[in-house]
Amino acid sequence: MTPERYQKIMRVLGKRQPTLSVLMDEVNKPHNFSAILRTCDAVGVQTAHAVPPKSGEMPSFGSSAYEATSGSAHKWVRVQPHTDAVSAVRELQAQGVQVLATHLSQRSVDYRTPDYTRPTCVLLGAEKWGVSDAAAEAADGNIIIPMFGMVQSLNVSVAAATILFEAQRQRLSAGMYDTPQLAPDDLARIAFEWGYP
Amino acid sequence: MTPERYQKIMRVLGKRQPTLSVLMDEVNKPHNFSAILRTCDAVGVQTAHAVPPKSGEMPSFGSSAYEATSGSAHKWVRVQPHTDAVSAVRELQAQGVQVLATHLSQRSVDYRTPDYTRPTCVLLGAEKWGVSDAAAEAADGNIIIPMFGMVQSLNVSVAAATILFEAQRQRLSAGMYDTPQLAPDDLARIAFEWGYP
Ligand SMILES: C[S@@+](CC[C@H](N)C(=O)[O-])C[C@H]1O[C@@H](n2cnc3c(N)ncnc32)[C@H](O)[C@@H]1O
Ligand SMILES: C[S@@+](CC[C@H](N)C(=O)[O-])C[C@H]1O[C@@H](n2cnc3c(N)ncnc32)[C@H](O)[C@@H]1O
Repeated sequence: MTPERYQKIMRVLGKRQPTLSVLMDEVNKPHNFSAILRTCDAVGVQTAHAVPPKSGEMPSFGSSAYEATSGSAHKWVRVQPHTDAVSAVRELQAQGVQVLATHLSQRSVDYRTPDYTRPTCVLLGAEKWGVSDAAAEAADGNIIIPMFGMVQSLNVSVAAATILFEAQRQRLSAGMYDTPQLAPDDLARIAFEWGYP
Repeated sequence: MTPERYQKIMRVLGKRQPTLSVLMDEVNKPHNFSAILRTCDAVGVQTAHAVPPKSGEMPSFGSSAYEATSGSAHKWVRVQPHTDAVSAVRELQAQGVQVLATHLSQRSVDYRTPDYTRPTCVLLGAEKWGVSDAAAEAADGNIIIPMFGMVQSLNVSVAAATILFEAQRQRLSAGMYDTPQLAPDDLARIAFEWGYP
């Protein structure tokens, strides 16, 4: 490994945000999945939670569909699988994470309202069905990106990015990219994994 | 047409933003093109400018690739073709529009810096090549979305949405969605086209 490469890895890990994540509930199109991982990498999300589509369509990460479109983001963002969205939500909440479901309901608020400097996971729904009512109810809050057009919903990777860059904005002004957020042990371990794959 | 449908059309046209647009320079993947149109519809962009890919790969709008993924946004956002990016930039500038190229250069600024309440067009580049240096130089400004990860660039539809929802945020607080921005004649004409296709 060149010194430049090592420095890049350390610089990136110094900005990773272990308290920011996404939970993808059966997102099944590879180009959406990849675009979301790429955005995760850009804002410093280190772990993306995912419930694989029931149809079993989520391609394996080595497949060419991912390689072609993720810009290799799957190498830099860990994907943690879960069996179902509701239990994943409860598991995250037990760790002190607020889960915000992208879902239209009585209690939905504009996505710019929540405090994303708190430990936060953004729950994203499947292209066809969105977030289930059960998962949205289990979540700590429901958020929505205001839409003023004829079409009912955004592309899921577009919605993910819109919310994650609001989180980035808030975390930038809170100085959360100025000092490492990863625990020193985790930072050293990931640096080793990335440096010597 | 039902009264509900008519009211929806009038409500949407009342929020259209004729002074906000995008210019896609050879964006060639249908799912990206469609996701961008869908975001345009959501923030009120009425005209999306596009330079078709030289490879001639941009599918016609009736094709199933578009129908499947755009949520029919191509019906509600007009696509205006141009022969090349530089002349499109100059044409827009002659109409008093500031063109902001998504491009990394000496003069790039954070995408949150510009004033999007001014007449603005966001120039987006091709998946493979990005915005050409010539088009970026012709533009009034260069903007960039800050990235803190290992991967070099975002998906183009993700970048488009991140910027357009910042424009939406600024225009919301400036009250630009509270009163119709379309000229009364244009509003009436489009209402007729949408109501009786
Ligand atoms: C195509 S949408 C799902 C559409 C589905 N028919 C529904 O009604 O929920 C896929 C996912 O994109 C995200 N999404 C789309 N539009 C959104 C919006 N306006 N606000 C927040 N999330 C949105 C959500 O995660 C949603 O589950
Ligand atoms: C995949 S990128 C192009 C990558 C190309 N290799 C380059 O270096 O420009 C496609 C388009 O997405 C947009 N884009 C991607 N990342 C961006 C960022 N961080 N800021 C602004 N626009 C971005 C730009 O419109 C860009 O032209």
